[in-house]
Amino acid sequence: MNFSSKLLENAVYEFSRLPGVGQKTALRLVLHLLKQDTGDVQRFSSAMVKLRTEIQHCGTCHNISDSAVCEICASHKRDHGLICVVEDTRDVMAIENTNQYNGVYHVLGGLISPMDGVGPADLAIDSLVERIKTGEVNEVVFALSATMEGDTTIFYLHKRLKDAVVIISTIARGIAFGGELEYVDEITLGRSIATRVPYENSLSR
Amino acid sequence: MNFSSKLLENAVYEFSRLPGVGQKTALRLVLHLLKQDTGDVQRFSSAMVKLRTEIQHCGTCHNISDSAVCEICASHKRDHGLICVVEDTRDVMAIENTNQYNGVYHVLGGLISPMDGVGPADLAIDSLVERIKTGEVNEVVFALSATMEGDTTIFYLHKRLKDAVVIISTIARGIAFGGELEYVDEITLGRSIATRVPYENSLSR
Repeated sequence: MNFSSKLLENAVYEFSRLPGVGQKTALRLVLHLLKQDTGDVQRFSSAMVKLRTEIQHCGTCHNISDSAVCEICASHKRDHGLICVVEDTRDVMAIENTNQYNGVYHVLGGLISPMDGVGPADLAIDSLVERIKTGEVNEVVFALSATMEGDTTIFYLHKRLKDAVVIISTIARGIAFGGELEYVDEITLGRSIATRVPYENSLSR
Repeated sequence: MNFSSKLLENAVYEFSRLPGVGQKTALRLVLHLLKQDTGDVQRFSSAMVKLRTEIQHCGTCHNISDSAVCEICASHKRDHGLICVVEDTRDVMAIENTNQYNGVYHVLGGLISPMDGVGPADLAIDSLVERIKTGEVNEVVFALSATMEGDTTIFYLHKRLKDAVVIISTIARGIAFGGELEYVDEITLGRSIATRVPYENSLSR
């Protein structure tokens, strides 16, 4: 593209490096910022720098946090004997939004993926084993994506954890609430028949 | 959404104020920035602040520029007797990318739109009239959108400029190169038959 200004070109370049943002979208966003008050643009910029420089990871669950121990791990209202293992912060937020879970979390920081060069040593797995060794944990729930990487990670974690005296469970898989049968893929439908549950347990709360 | 961190929440809020960026997209972009080096994030932020605080508008054509007179207005290779009137900077960039235009520009900064409360006084129209009064301009080309606002603006400008001894033209309207006849709307097709041109003039260069 033919920019009339180096400053503009530079700002568009920086924006277009974000995932899913092409050059045209970047230009539209930058021209929008250009129309805002200087104070607004400074607030936008400093929010990003502040986030990057001041954010911490909880020493217990590795979730991103404003302090050394996150709010969830510090809470006395939470069941610290129940740990939900997730891939990243977004999953914590998604589960928190359901208001259905009262335990604590453990953020792995990714999934085992030999294709992408991610092995068990790159993830927060040793610290999960340490947490369980304390003897205060009753149950570990795996809430990982139903993908090859998710299944591989669950398989590996199960092998590492099976000697510890804890209940190991995974979140239920099946047909989504509101989902129409004819559009469900065959594997999900087949498994959800094979792993059918008593009617009383199936009601959405 | 239930954020585990005020810093994260704030950064997502600032991002989601951009046009077309929802909260989920904002979160995805912010978590991406969080994985980058601190230096990269600082470069991203300072590019935005620098753009907002240091950018200027060319005193002649009102295009955004790094200096008081933009590169195009300062160039001796350009035909300063030919002015192309456009809505904003993006149109200048689009026309420059065609490599088909060697004149200069005049950026109105918007279009007349009574619905949005934009009148002639809000646009850079008086300065266009001044430029033409110098007597060095031979032709004014309107390159505005083919919308109600664009047509209204052309109508108003034509009234203001018709007493000046300049040629007034608009960019050609018709069927796009590569366009298939059956998908063209009726108004465009009808007008392009009525305003047909000699075959020799129609070849794309």
